[in-house]
Amino acid sequence: MDRLRRDYEFADFAEALAFANRVGELAEERNHHPDILLHGYRHVRLEFWTHTAGGVTDADHALADACDALR
Amino acid sequence: MDRLRRDYEFADFAEALAFANRVGELAEERNHHPDILLHGYRHVRLEFWTHTAGGVTDADHALADACDALR
Repeated sequence: MDRLRRDYEFADFAEALAFANRVGELAEERNHHPDILLHGYRHVRLEFWTHTAGGVTDADHALADACDALR
Repeated sequence: MDRLRRDYEFADFAEALAFANRVGELAEERNHHPDILLHGYRHVRLEFWTHTAGGVTDADHALADACDALR
């Protein structure tokens, strides 16, 4: 299934985890939950898709853009 | 590089994210940070390894066991 992917780099693990929590709060508000990968100490990868649509939708792009704004 | 992997399933996204935060707190205390993947709404995968050792060490097994206890 196609996914929309966004990668972010932070100063340290704590900053990366804080971002993951902001993304999580937004995901709960929208009831739309990306996969969130904290990796390599200070990197976060987000993957967005809509299971019921079998791929990436406008809602995924909108959520990805909103996550960019939380960086 | 070999990694030690642990998979967990929770009731919902909020529980999975709360667990990820407990793991993050422990990782900071030990200054040893697994990769943390929140995926499929309520699943968490942890991957442990020691970069300087080129693989999995006793410290990784100890941290994995400690994370099990945080579930």
